[in-house]
Amino acid sequence: MSVTAAQGFLASGVPAGIKESGDRDLALVVNRGPSRAAAGVFTSNRVQAAPVRWSRRVLADQSLAAVVLNSGGANACTGRVGEADTRAMAEATALAVGVAAEEVAVCSTGLIGVTLPMDRVTTGITTAAAGLSADGGEDAAVAIKTTDSVHKTAVASGPGWTVGGMAKGAGMLAPGLATMLVVLTTDADVSGQVLDAALRQAVRTTFDRVDSDGCMSTNDTVLLLASGTSGVTPFPAAFAEAVHAVCHDLARQLIADAEGASKEIEVRITGADSEHDAVTVGRSVARNNLLKCALHGEDPNWGRVLSAIGTTDAVFDPDRLDVAINGVWVCRDGAAGEDREKVDLSGREVTVTVDLRSGEESATIWTNDLTAEYVHENSAYSS
Amino acid sequence: MSVTAAQGFLASGVPAGIKESGDRDLALVVNRGPSRAAAGVFTSNRVQAAPVRWSRRVLADQSLAAVVLNSGGANACTGRVGEADTRAMAEATALAVGVAAEEVAVCSTGLIGVTLPMDRVTTGITTAAAGLSADGGEDAAVAIKTTDSVHKTAVASGPGWTVGGMAKGAGMLAPGLATMLVVLTTDADVSGQVLDAALRQAVRTTFDRVDSDGCMSTNDTVLLLASGTSGVTPFPAAFAEAVHAVCHDLARQLIADAEGASKEIEVRITGADSEHDAVTVGRSVARNNLLKCALHGEDPNWGRVLSAIGTTDAVFDPDRLDVAINGVWVCRDGAAGEDREKVDLSGREVTVTVDLRSGEESATIWTNDLTAEYVHENSAYSS
Repeated sequence: MSVTAAQGFLASGVPAGIKESGDRDLALVVNRGPSRAAAGVFTSNRVQAAPVRWSRRVLADQSLAAVVLNSGGANACTGRVGEADTRAMAEATALAVGVAAEEVAVCSTGLIGVTLPMDRVTTGITTAAAGLSADGGEDAAVAIKTTDSVHKTAVASGPGWTVGGMAKGAGMLAPGLATMLVVLTTDADVSGQVLDAALRQAVRTTFDRVDSDGCMSTNDTVLLLASGTSGVTPFPAAFAEAVHAVCHDLARQLIADAEGASKEIEVRITGADSEHDAVTVGRSVARNNLLKCALHGEDPNWGRVLSAIGTTDAVFDPDRLDVAINGVWVCRDGAAGEDREKVDLSGREVTVTVDLRSGEESATIWTNDLTAEYVHENSAYSS
Repeated sequence: MSVTAAQGFLASGVPAGIKESGDRDLALVVNRGPSRAAAGVFTSNRVQAAPVRWSRRVLADQSLAAVVLNSGGANACTGRVGEADTRAMAEATALAVGVAAEEVAVCSTGLIGVTLPMDRVTTGITTAAAGLSADGGEDAAVAIKTTDSVHKTAVASGPGWTVGGMAKGAGMLAPGLATMLVVLTTDADVSGQVLDAALRQAVRTTFDRVDSDGCMSTNDTVLLLASGTSGVTPFPAAFAEAVHAVCHDLARQLIADAEGASKEIEVRITGADSEHDAVTVGRSVARNNLLKCALHGEDPNWGRVLSAIGTTDAVFDPDRLDVAINGVWVCRDGAAGEDREKVDLSGREVTVTVDLRSGEESATIWTNDLTAEYVHENSAYSS
């Protein structure tokens, strides 16, 4: 269903020859509805790819008519050539689908520091434009994959309206934003302001809390386009809830497909003095390589959880920390609690719960284990 | 040479049966000189092991007569039992060597959350005390090993005086302080204040800048004991330089022996607006798992360096960043520079140089690559 689940959108995904594999690597999403309201959230990395700089600029008026996306090259750290290439992608798309270049967002993903083969990219845009269809959402989702093993889509609906989306990302999932390109569409008739509020709120507690390897991308982009085709204007709260549901679904799919992962780990922090404390502690635990190795080895090593908590400035008393792994409270009052032999880590899903016993706030961070496969996938000789 | 290179010190290392392997696991270092001046630096982790809490307390008067160290158990997150066990270790040592318990520092290393087999520990202390010798420094250095593949010692001398030391640590090397137990001794006649200043200054630019895996220990301890036996009081600057030299030597040995590492990586940040910025950027680069995997695979992936820099709040312009890998400036002005094919990464030593082009300050962080062996060593099923 993907980005064409909502009415008023066309999409396509084609092999443009950017990837050596010959796989699909160029996607278009076009808004043909009466509205062009849009919102976006971008990486907080200060080293930003040319397409991020461009898309941020064209979104200033909260309006988009189309998105062009490519895998096979991030067009990041490519200097003025990269800036010109991004603009050329927007212009080629504008020409092919009959809109203004300033109404076209650009998203790129792949290796940093390499310029795009622009002849192939522009030819691909023409081909993709010719193949635009109301069933093209799946092809588009496939075309934005990099090391993803599967393409990711999600849909949520309200009475008479729909929110759908696609995502890519498998490594570099991180703070600020995860590795990713995400395009969401809706046929609800919603203003740019409402879109922006709903998107920021959803991203803050979904993609922003996915932390696979602590590395933040230069290209992360989440876009939300509204066509208004349904003619329905939902209550903002109901709409925000649907956007959140789609983002949550996609975020979980990203973690499930993280590079080389064998465990999906939910780090749940409760009893925090503030939400900020809960997120800080959650991230510190989620990024601890030693813990991630231990969970990979199915070792309920709660000492590594405590040492990760101890590096933060959150409010807590080291002698009053409780930690459960898959429901077994292996650490009580900062020392050994229930028998660690009771912990069953044989499944793919792991929950690490930390009770800071310092307040009422909570937060959840999703991560995965650290495996030899992660190392292999990210060492040049293996990719 | 180790801790007995300086006059006035006796040491020993024995197998007490704390480790199942039967290897040496208990060490004593005793100061028999006219002076008992001492200084210490401890982990900044807020979750601190019982021996850290104890040693910090007994060092308040800048005086120590002995140090007892064990491997095979960290005595961290062990609650009141752990506190009592640490005190018992100090008391047993005090009794065996004829000093006060409040003059004995305690250091433990090994698994977190497990209490020590105190009958074996106390018997071991008696045995170790009986074996104290002016040649015992090597045995002591061996006895504090955990996953270290080799024991680490270093010595520096001035006219008539010596500074020597031993260190252990292979994983968990990190910010604040690295994984480690370090005992330094000197026969110089130096006050506690001078010792403290020299030690803090040395640690700040050596052990504090070793960052193997970003994980901070609950037990890190660096002690410096002065016997005064040489009767020589060096100029503070000359003494500080010798302490720095020994710390630097030991810090490099720690990185060289980091768990599963195949590369020793020096991250050198220049052109920073402040030393703080240089350290912040250096740590961010040194902790980037994706870069550490790339260097393991001998891939000069400078894009991962830039994306790590971009996550910091240091002063820099993304379009004016220069990066060299092993001397080849593969990134100039935030984009591709010299041909990356020129980079030779076949050796064990790798230097990543970042010029922030924003000032005159600099700093160096030492780290290592991320390997499948690291994952294996830190997954329970393999250890």
